[in-house]
Amino acid sequence: MLIIVQKYGGSSLATDEQIKKIAGWIAKRKKEGNQLVVIVSARGDTTDELIDLAHRFSDRPDKRELDTLLSTGEIVSSTLLVMTLISMDCKAVSLTGFQAGIKTNGYHGQARILSINPQRILKELKKDKIVVIAGFQGINKEMDVSTLGRGGSDLTATAIAAALGAEICEIYTDVRGVFTADPSIVPQSTKLNEIGYDEMLELAGCGAKVLHPRSVELAEFYNMPILVASSFTDEPGTFVGKESMEVRSKIRGITCDLNIARITIVGVPDRPGIASAIFEPLAQSSISVDTIVQNTSIEGNIIDVSFTVSKNNFGEALKIIESIIKSIDAKACLGDSELGKVSIIGTGMRNTPGCASKIFKTLYENNINIKIISTSDITISCIVNKDEAHRAVQALHKAFNL
Amino acid sequence: MLIIVQKYGGSSLATDEQIKKIAGWIAKRKKEGNQLVVIVSARGDTTDELIDLAHRFSDRPDKRELDTLLSTGEIVSSTLLVMTLISMDCKAVSLTGFQAGIKTNGYHGQARILSINPQRILKELKKDKIVVIAGFQGINKEMDVSTLGRGGSDLTATAIAAALGAEICEIYTDVRGVFTADPSIVPQSTKLNEIGYDEMLELAGCGAKVLHPRSVELAEFYNMPILVASSFTDEPGTFVGKESMEVRSKIRGITCDLNIARITIVGVPDRPGIASAIFEPLAQSSISVDTIVQNTSIEGNIIDVSFTVSKNNFGEALKIIESIIKSIDAKACLGDSELGKVSIIGTGMRNTPGCASKIFKTLYENNINIKIISTSDITISCIVNKDEAHRAVQALHKAFNL
Repeated sequence: MLIIVQKYGGSSLATDEQIKKIAGWIAKRKKEGNQLVVIVSARGDTTDELIDLAHRFSDRPDKRELDTLLSTGEIVSSTLLVMTLISMDCKAVSLTGFQAGIKTNGYHGQARILSINPQRILKELKKDKIVVIAGFQGINKEMDVSTLGRGGSDLTATAIAAALGAEICEIYTDVRGVFTADPSIVPQSTKLNEIGYDEMLELAGCGAKVLHPRSVELAEFYNMPILVASSFTDEPGTFVGKESMEVRSKIRGITCDLNIARITIVGVPDRPGIASAIFEPLAQSSISVDTIVQNTSIEGNIIDVSFTVSKNNFGEALKIIESIIKSIDAKACLGDSELGKVSIIGTGMRNTPGCASKIFKTLYENNINIKIISTSDITISCIVNKDEAHRAVQALHKAFNL
Repeated sequence: MLIIVQKYGGSSLATDEQIKKIAGWIAKRKKEGNQLVVIVSARGDTTDELIDLAHRFSDRPDKRELDTLLSTGEIVSSTLLVMTLISMDCKAVSLTGFQAGIKTNGYHGQARILSINPQRILKELKKDKIVVIAGFQGINKEMDVSTLGRGGSDLTATAIAAALGAEICEIYTDVRGVFTADPSIVPQSTKLNEIGYDEMLELAGCGAKVLHPRSVELAEFYNMPILVASSFTDEPGTFVGKESMEVRSKIRGITCDLNIARITIVGVPDRPGIASAIFEPLAQSSISVDTIVQNTSIEGNIIDVSFTVSKNNFGEALKIIESIIKSIDAKACLGDSELGKVSIIGTGMRNTPGCASKIFKTLYENNINIKIISTSDITISCIVNKDEAHRAVQALHKAFNL
């Protein structure tokens, strides 16, 4: 029998009716002769509510404790879904991340999956049970719960699918698939029927929230096809897989990420080891740095270094940088958290000269100032003022005729 | 350093202020130079709320799933208390039942503790941490969560105290200690400063809700002194320990349990194996039977068998008995769930002739009909109509001058 892995996000489980509807879907797929492994997120806003709860007791909740607290959200979802399935005469069992054999490294709040021992899952599948797994969590070598960070349930689903050699990993969410741009910003945007891993990766990395970039990476590595579809409609979604020749020649989408903050360090002496002195302390605090821009030093060996972090890391990152200003002999640091990143993505850019200049021209014609530019093989990203970001997406979507 | 085990019940953790107050107490005890292991229940009515939640998805929630769901209540408490302690600069760590090494048998909803491996607890104590353990739960050999039943956190505390060879196990609750009778029924009742295990066991078994009988049994076996005290006042509580000579000569208290239902099987043929045929199926469904009364057969080898169960098992027990009526050739079965059990307890009864007759006379003078009488070494219990139970306790408290 084929193993199908499904993942249902928090909004798909928010109401009792949704849980019952989804249980019906799962039961139907089971009766069609599949083995089913289902990964669930915490219901609705549970995770945010638990974070708020923790902050009632501590300004900076201990990360290990917070992880254990947050993990209960997914456990609750998993047991409720299984109770519903059993009440419909489906054999089913819930597993926590620990019971599902998910081993992680020790980084609380943003742990990485080290390995999955699928023994227990396979044992339950053999008993013809539907296995429902609490997403977002695993245990480290101390047997402590560690969570995988936001979007972690997508990652759980992809990793479990890979470990089981599943046919497909189906991610059910509150959007209908992957679009050329966020439909709430660009109403004319269209849904893609399929997309390659690389392009999906860039889309996800640039703020398209349908799929966590770490999931896409993992799926690509194990060549696991992913279906992204809505749990609210019966519409077909978007397949993410190996890209076909035809797909490679197009620009696939435009994203917009408003969760961006920039820190600029002014007047840094240009000497070896300076980058390490700046970014090492950030890494030690597990702060991911996105775009880094360093201008060439012209006079006096003094440079400026700018980088972006996600907005929720902004305060901590700024504090860290302020504390090292002196030790690196820099003049000052500035921060700006009212920014947006607009990215245009597609393998087609590799062989379409003039893409970058078309982007810059479009933004100029729309009177939008570009603060930082960064490019990768298949992506061009522009950091702009937050309140101009949506307008930039709309203009570019039109200019590239998506 | 001395190890002190403390347990805080749900009402003691219900409000944020209570949690912070208790964290202050714990921090103070730690600073006095003790090693502290704290067991917590779920906050306030959390367990009942989770049971209600489960029933929104299933009329008879699967017991394994329900156990996993319920266990999250204690986990939440433990993490919040630890976050609070850490924010007060106390080193602390929360452990789930599994992490604390609590192994149980497989009976979901009323599991028994098989063993405790305190390795992790000791490791954390060595790091000078306060260890906060989620009560009420352990894992069975399948690595599934199983809960210990109502009052299970008391049991966790006593078992952990025994496993660690602690100095004392302190149970903090919403009552001020052990009383001669429930103060809400008998305002004149007085608090006992100390009480023996045996008497406490009978008090607990007969419905005094301050301490779970399984905890008392366990404490007696390991000779672990218990302090029962209020988490709302600074009053000294009641010490439960080895009884002293002086204590042994008294009647210690009167209890009242309104959680009683009776089932009577009428016209049962009196033949060997009949008791087993009746009680085996109940045991298989994990239903505890309390008092059993079988009258002597006089004519035709036909007997009546009555027994009591707790009210929440009444429906299931009645169903089971109805299903075996035919196979044991009995005539019929009757049920009555509007009953109360009044018990008078004290090792003093052993050497005080006339105790029983004084009880029966007091109830007779107060026009209270006794439905079933049962006696043990240090207890006399009478099953009466529920609406007469409180009056019975008041009358007996007065008659015995407690």
